Amino acid sequence: MSRAAATTSSYSITMRLHTAPDHGVVGAVATAIAEAGGIVTAIDVAESSHERLVVDVTCSAVDADHAEELQTAAGAVPGVTVHKTSDRVFLLHIGGKIEVSSKVALRNRDDLSMAYTPGVGRVSKALAEHPEDVRRLTVKGNSVAVVTDGSAVLGLGNIGPGAALPVMEGKAALFKRFADIDAWPICLDTQDADEIVRAVELIAPGFGGINLEDIAAPRCFEIEQRLRASLDIPVFHDDQHGTAIVVLAALTNALRVVGKELDSSRVVVAGAGAAGTAIVTLLLAAGAADVVVCDKDGALSRDDASLPPAQARLAEVTNPRNVTGDLHAALTGADVFVGVSAPNILDPEWIADMAEGAVVFALANPDPEVDPGEAAKHAAVVASGRSDYPNQINNVLAFPGVFRGLLDARARDVTVEMMLRAAHALAHVVADHELNPSFIIPSVFHPDVPGAVAAAIREG
Amino acid sequence: MSRAAATTSSYSITMRLHTAPDHGVVGAVATAIAEAGGIVTAIDVAESSHERLVVDVTCSAVDADHAEELQTAAGAVPGVTVHKTSDRVFLLHIGGKIEVSSKVALRNRDDLSMAYTPGVGRVSKALAEHPEDVRRLTVKGNSVAVVTDGSAVLGLGNIGPGAALPVMEGKAALFKRFADIDAWPICLDTQDADEIVRAVELIAPGFGGINLEDIAAPRCFEIEQRLRASLDIPVFHDDQHGTAIVVLAALTNALRVVGKELDSSRVVVAGAGAAGTAIVTLLLAAGAADVVVCDKDGALSRDDASLPPAQARLAEVTNPRNVTGDLHAALTGADVFVGVSAPNILDPEWIADMAEGAVVFALANPDPEVDPGEAAKHAAVVASGRSDYPNQINNVLAFPGVFRGLLDARARDVTVEMMLRAAHALAHVVADHELNPSFIIPSVFHPDVPGAVAAAIREG
Repeated sequence: MSRAAATTSSYSITMRLHTAPDHGVVGAVATAIAEAGGIVTAIDVAESSHERLVVDVTCSAVDADHAEELQTAAGAVPGVTVHKTSDRVFLLHIGGKIEVSSKVALRNRDDLSMAYTPGVGRVSKALAEHPEDVRRLTVKGNSVAVVTDGSAVLGLGNIGPGAALPVMEGKAALFKRFADIDAWPICLDTQDADEIVRAVELIAPGFGGINLEDIAAPRCFEIEQRLRASLDIPVFHDDQHGTAIVVLAALTNALRVVGKELDSSRVVVAGAGAAGTAIVTLLLAAGAADVVVCDKDGALSRDDASLPPAQARLAEVTNPRNVTGDLHAALTGADVFVGVSAPNILDPEWIADMAEGAVVFALANPDPEVDPGEAAKHAAVVASGRSDYPNQINNVLAFPGVFRGLLDARARDVTVEMMLRAAHALAHVVADHELNPSFIIPSVFHPDVPGAVAAAIREG
Repeated sequence: MSRAAATTSSYSITMRLHTAPDHGVVGAVATAIAEAGGIVTAIDVAESSHERLVVDVTCSAVDADHAEELQTAAGAVPGVTVHKTSDRVFLLHIGGKIEVSSKVALRNRDDLSMAYTPGVGRVSKALAEHPEDVRRLTVKGNSVAVVTDGSAVLGLGNIGPGAALPVMEGKAALFKRFADIDAWPICLDTQDADEIVRAVELIAPGFGGINLEDIAAPRCFEIEQRLRASLDIPVFHDDQHGTAIVVLAALTNALRVVGKELDSSRVVVAGAGAAGTAIVTLLLAAGAADVVVCDKDGALSRDDASLPPAQARLAEVTNPRNVTGDLHAALTGADVFVGVSAPNILDPEWIADMAEGAVVFALANPDPEVDPGEAAKHAAVVASGRSDYPNQINNVLAFPGVFRGLLDARARDVTVEMMLRAAHALAHVVADHELNPSFIIPSVFHPDVPGAVAAAIREG
């Protein structure tokens, strides 16, 4: 079975091979790797002598076990030994992925006396007299703290602040790449809400915005609310609101494709955590009138006195028809499914029981609620978090432009109206004539996205 | 009186002049500025037409008032109006002086899947299993937090965290310039020692070292001690120990010039704050046996029960001959004066009462305890913090190399032994044949300095 379609750069290895001095061996190695299901992406003959060749072969595998298989396959070619294997992902992470640079020259005493003492003292004195100038004269005008406690990192769960740092560095790199924002990771050595709130309040003077990241529900709700109340810079938990903005944008376009309106659509959201709660809130603000939330115990109903506070709040504002039962029951006759829960909880056959023109967003990472290919047999429009299917719902479409707009506007808060405008702008990056069931959301590399989102945030 | 020698780039302005279309007027402007005591550093004819010239003239002034005088002088030239004046120091600070950059390419999906999800998840998972690898696989291996509460900033005192940010940005820029360290400013919105300690403990996971900066005595001592006890990364208050290292290095060389030994020299230190305390501690560790500390009330003596705790501790370990009285009395017969106190507290004539071959370090910023030119009439070796005299004692000579060494060694602490080695290495960047009364400490731009200091830190 060819697994070529499922290889991924995230399992990309570079093997340094020592081979017999026969250049035909290079082709034999490439063939062996392909037959084992790997994709060769680069071959370099690093050394060539009468005794041997040293050949660096870079290839992508499906997963770690498959990477092992590819090494075995290469080593099985006559005359070849695998000298050393480097994992490209780990190589790329050595020494970290971000750095701080000076924007000003520091070549000589004159430069130092302007960028540092005594010249900098004049600027500090001016700011002491006119604190309102701080965003203009310092990095606070362009800086965002990416704050985590490491309690809900990707699909890994509670791995703590140190292990979370590569993810936060990656986030900072994306902020720079897509919105020219200077973001710095702040990995907190606590999971106590009071300590997290106080730590962020204390570091706030140097930042123009706070991006909360990978902090578990329900603490993330309280932390964000308290910080929004006490800080005069915007606070945005991307796992909540970034996801919600992109989901709303994609749903806006999906409903246009199937010819429905949000306010008359029946929406089922699976997952009552950070993302699910924020999605529900934004959909309701956008006019959705019939949203049912399901967690692992079924549809949330306001009659259920056993619900914890966060789920009880959700139940209060959703499920107007008092639907009860499991996910299948909730989905019957529904127009839209949005999953932000767990893998494989949605049987593809249940989609056939949804309304005509069903929209299915299966966003659990890394494995969605339903395989997108299977879902497409019954649904009119399918989206997921996966990059190997159309319609990837990716937060990178939102948070860079959102913060770019917030910083440019010197905003003190993030409002629901701003998020609705951002979702609208993001949806309309897809032109009418481009819109189709496999193109409801732009690519993260679409050059118009960050600017359109930022302009929408600034507009109010 | 020509003030040309005292102009400084830190009062550098660019005037945009509109002039008659007569190129002779450019020379007239340059002459007028020079006659008013300014230094012209650049002239650009930005526009030239039949009606007028637009000429940008950049010049250095002595201070803000003098900058006004230069504008008046330029505008007084016939045919010239000053259209607009920009302060180059403020211009340079617009938008801040530092930025965050990605070290890894983010051009396409493959790049994203290695630097971000899903590839980054593999690295986080590995760190969760092997936390000891965090310094190798993240920016923690190269990062330093520059932490302040804004309570003791340069000569400006307690201006708070926001106004302190330009100084902290400058510090970060210097860390990169001289030691390729990724330093980020952390300006804390509190002056409570407990809150400062807790905040730094909480942010520590993402940093390889902590540089405390511009935090007032005596809180700075407690804060540093508590953080050194609780953190497994080094903590270094530069105003204390950076100053002490450079002072010891310069003193080592000054004593070589005058042919004396530290352990038989009488040293007077003026100032019992952060710098003074740290200098005394390091000098004693280096073998000094006769150190007298003077504050504004005179020599600190262990018989004085009225001393606050920090000064009492200093008195305990100094002044073996129980010297009493004011600074003049303490200096009589002394070999060395180190001032880290206030301007103009030292009458140059008192230096004549010091021992033969007197060494005078007048380090108060921006105005020293005594004018270095006046001091040189009586002292054998003079140093100050000023860049317009020889022998500038500048912390930039220490902190970049110190932290480079600490990060490279994956050190958990900073020890007195490390600091003694660093001072020794710094002193010996000045080769024997180069040593003279006007060259006891290298320039901050001497390319050997950071590496020599780093190697000394790592060596133990």
